[in-house]
Parts: sequence; C-alpha cells; structure tokens
Amino acid sequence: MKTNQIKDLSRLCIHTITTKPFNIEQAANNYSANGVKGITVWRDALQNRNIKQTGEMLRQHNLSVVSLCRGGFFPGKEQKKRQEAIEDNRRAIEEAFELGTNLIVLVCGADPSQSLEDSRKQICDGISTILPEAKAAGIKLAIEPLHPMYADTRSAINTLAQANDMTEALNSPWVGVAVDVYHLWWDPNLESEIERCGKNNALLAFHVCDWKSPTVDFLNDRGLMGEGCIPIKKIRSWVEATGFNGFIEVEIFSNSYWKQDQAMFLKNIVKAYQENV
Amino acid sequence: MKTNQIKDLSRLCIHTITTKPFNIEQAANNYSANGVKGITVWRDALQNRNIKQTGEMLRQHNLSVVSLCRGGFFPGKEQKKRQEAIEDNRRAIEEAFELGTNLIVLVCGADPSQSLEDSRKQICDGISTILPEAKAAGIKLAIEPLHPMYADTRSAINTLAQANDMTEALNSPWVGVAVDVYHLWWDPNLESEIERCGKNNALLAFHVCDWKSPTVDFLNDRGLMGEGCIPIKKIRSWVEATGFNGFIEVEIFSNSYWKQDQAMFLKNIVKAYQENV
Repeated sequence: MKTNQIKDLSRLCIHTITTKPFNIEQAANNYSANGVKGITVWRDALQNRNIKQTGEMLRQHNLSVVSLCRGGFFPGKEQKKRQEAIEDNRRAIEEAFELGTNLIVLVCGADPSQSLEDSRKQICDGISTILPEAKAAGIKLAIEPLHPMYADTRSAINTLAQANDMTEALNSPWVGVAVDVYHLWWDPNLESEIERCGKNNALLAFHVCDWKSPTVDFLNDRGLMGEGCIPIKKIRSWVEATGFNGFIEVEIFSNSYWKQDQAMFLKNIVKAYQENV
Repeated sequence: MKTNQIKDLSRLCIHTITTKPFNIEQAANNYSANGVKGITVWRDALQNRNIKQTGEMLRQHNLSVVSLCRGGFFPGKEQKKRQEAIEDNRRAIEEAFELGTNLIVLVCGADPSQSLEDSRKQICDGISTILPEAKAAGIKLAIEPLHPMYADTRSAINTLAQANDMTEALNSPWVGVAVDVYHLWWDPNLESEIERCGKNNALLAFHVCDWKSPTVDFLNDRGLMGEGCIPIKKIRSWVEATGFNGFIEVEIFSNSYWKQDQAMFLKNIVKAYQENV
C-alpha cells in the first residue's frame, strides 16, 4: 500500500473536537505549526468569540475553514422541539457565514419516542425549511449518515444509501453528504453508494478515524487511523474514484486521547495520517 | 395496539442466558412454573451435564427446546483457527442432536485483522463445510445477522439482506435466518427483507428484547421489551405476515437484570411479553 501514502499535508484537516482540550487559538497555532492545512470548527469552540475575527485568525494561520460542525437534530415528537431545531440551524448558517466556511455538517437527529420513519420525514422537512437561508448564505449542507448504534437519539439516517436517497429527494446543489468511515465501514454497499454519491456531485466531506477492538464507549472511544479495523485506504480510494479531492478530515472523539498532551497527540495524528490514510 | 397483544404464553420461549444466574434445572423449574413453553439453551448451560438427559428433563417440564445457541465464529486469518471453528461447530451439531432440538443459531464471527469480505467468504465456506453433518443430524442452521456495532469481532453479517443473500447462495433447506429485533430494528429495508426471508422459507427464529436510550454497554445492556425504542409489535407483524408462527424468543443480556432476583425478573419478562411484543 506504500504507493498509496499521502506524504504531504495539503489535504489534512482536523476537527477542533479531536483536540478538545485546545481552545481554538491553541488549535490554530498548533495545527499550523505542524503543517495542517484545514480546520473544521465545532460550534462549542466559538463560544465567547467574535466569529468573524476567529475566521480571519484561522486564515492568518493558513488554515482553510473546511466546515462548521454541526447543524441538524431536526426530529422531535413535539412541534416546539422541531421549531427550536430550525432556529438553531438558522443560527448555524449565520455562524458558518461569519466564520467564512461554505459547509455545515448535519447530524440529523432522532427521537426514540417516535418511529424512525417519522424522524426521517422530519429531517427531510427540516432541511427543506432551512435550504433557502443556506443558499442565500452560500452554505452547503452535508447530511452525515451515522452508525446504526446511534439510531435511537442521534440520527435516523444510518446508511449512505439513505443519505443518497434524501439528497436525491431534496434535489438541490446546496445539499449533499458527509462520508465518515467510522459510521459506514461495515456497510456491504459502501463502494457502490460512494460511487452513486459522486455521480450526484454530492460527496461534500470525508471524515476519518478508526474502529478499535474492543470499543468500550458508545461515543468517545474512537481510534487513531491504523489502530483499528477500518479499511481506510480502500475507502479513500473509492472516495477519490468519484473525483473527490477535498480535505481529509480527522474527527476523533476519545476520552483517552483527550487526556494526553495534545501537542504530542497532534504529532501522532499527522503520523497516522501519513501512514494509514 | 391492544388487539395485537399476546395473552397466552404458548409461543413464549426464553434463552437460558436471559436468566444467566439460574442453572438449567432452575431455569426449567421457573420457566415451567410461569407457563413459559419454550427454552433456547446456551451451550454454557450444558457444562457438566448429560446432554441427552438434560433434554429429557426440559421436555418433562413441558418445554420445547427451540434452539441451541450458538455455533458460528467461522472467520480467522489463520487456517488453524478456522479449522478449530469447524470442529467446534461439529460438536454443536452433536450437542443439539443429543439435546433434541432441530435448530442451531449461528453467530457467524469476524476477524478484525482481515477484511470483512474475507470473513464473509470464510463464513460461507464454514457453513458449507458443516452442512452435511447438520443435514444428517436433522439440524437446521440459522444465520443471525448481528448489529453493525459487532462487525469487528462478532459478525461480518450485519443486515438481513446479507443473511438472505448467503442463505440463497447456500441454497439448502438446512440453512436459514434468525431475525433479532435488537440487531435489525434500525434497518430501512427490514420489512422487505423479512418478506424475502419468508418467501425463501428461511425465517427460522425470531428473537426479541429492546434498545434502551441510552445504552451504556456494547454487550450487556439490552432492555426488556417496552423499555426502549424498538417497534417490536410492528416487526412481529412483518414476521408473522410471512406465515411464521414459531416461538418468540426473549434474549436479553443485561448486567443489571442479572443482578436482580431472577424469579421476579422472570415475572417481568412474562408481563413485558404480554404487553409489548
């Protein structure tokens, strides 16, 4: 697989949550010093910040602001909850515009007190509702299918086929898909659905990490690339076969990595990116 | 949903592992005293027992021995590991024959050090290898697709579509599928794949429990029916629309329920079965 390695870092993006103990200024300094070229900003990292100035600060560090994480969480049995979600997504669009990114990742949501079918319909309705604002702001929306183990509360969209179906139903150049290997690696239809996503010009983001055996926490035990069983290079080859040449985004939630020295962890991320992506 | 309730217990089966603190004699006494009519025996419950006599003991308690859990775990990067799995499955067939059941549930296995495709091929080869012995013993083999969160080590078969595909490929009346709501409830294709499974005469077993929100352990935090978000009645209606009228098997792994008084837990299982299945 050596020929397939990425030596330069021009497409490496890191999610702020990956190095959660860093504030966004520390993230900018450290990412930049290590040659990282992209950053995806989680909204919690913007608290108590002037968002426009933060975007400028990131660009001064030669960081592309790849996306804002995250909008979504549309479903709710109560109308009030759904309306609050719409308002929150409108704020996310404003924040993304201020920050100067053109992509919002949607963790679509689910409500265990209602059927998955109802949640899926509410997701589609929710995206449809905010689409005019997204378009006006020049922001694309990426539906991120989440692993089926999150179908109860985090996302009723659990396969790339479902995300592709919804993208086709919404039929807008402002809606596409985020492909995350952690959520999708097990899917026997992954290669063909990535191809389909590419044909729709809908593959907007590519997230990597790894699946550890054993995984001991439902949320915060993701592995560094190479530590687990996900065929990341193979999946990357499928993604790139569609023509995708955007950033490769490292998104790791890990109680154990967050406890480490983050500067050292960052060096290990860069190494893992060069060797195992 | 009231009209859909099952008041009588003639189709209620419980897996020995559900009441793990009971030994098999205690399980037989307690299940029988509560009107339960079926038992699925996990192999650990047979340790240090004469298996044939145990089967007779269960029938004397008016319990049908619905299946033996579990065979499978076919994949392995090393040939030696695969051969050991074949031998173990042959022992499972002997045990099932002695016990007097005509069904073995297969947890097919996976090996995180190789690709899912390799594991799937080895599963198919493994089942094919033991099929003559199964047929000779009059034992059917049920492929159980497991939740994608188990794709690293427990099963490379993670959707009912994959189990149906493999059943069709093996094309034998001795191979079919076990449908477990815990593993499959999230799947947008579940209804159509249950229908397909039925048309193949391959729906051999139906397992129930519930998915709690939050679920805090990857293995041992299953819920009692009604405690979670799985639409059990709806899935049962799909299963029964195929003509399935076999046992409905309660399979719950739960650290918290195993700590309770098992006689009381058993009464709660019966109640949950009558109200929420």
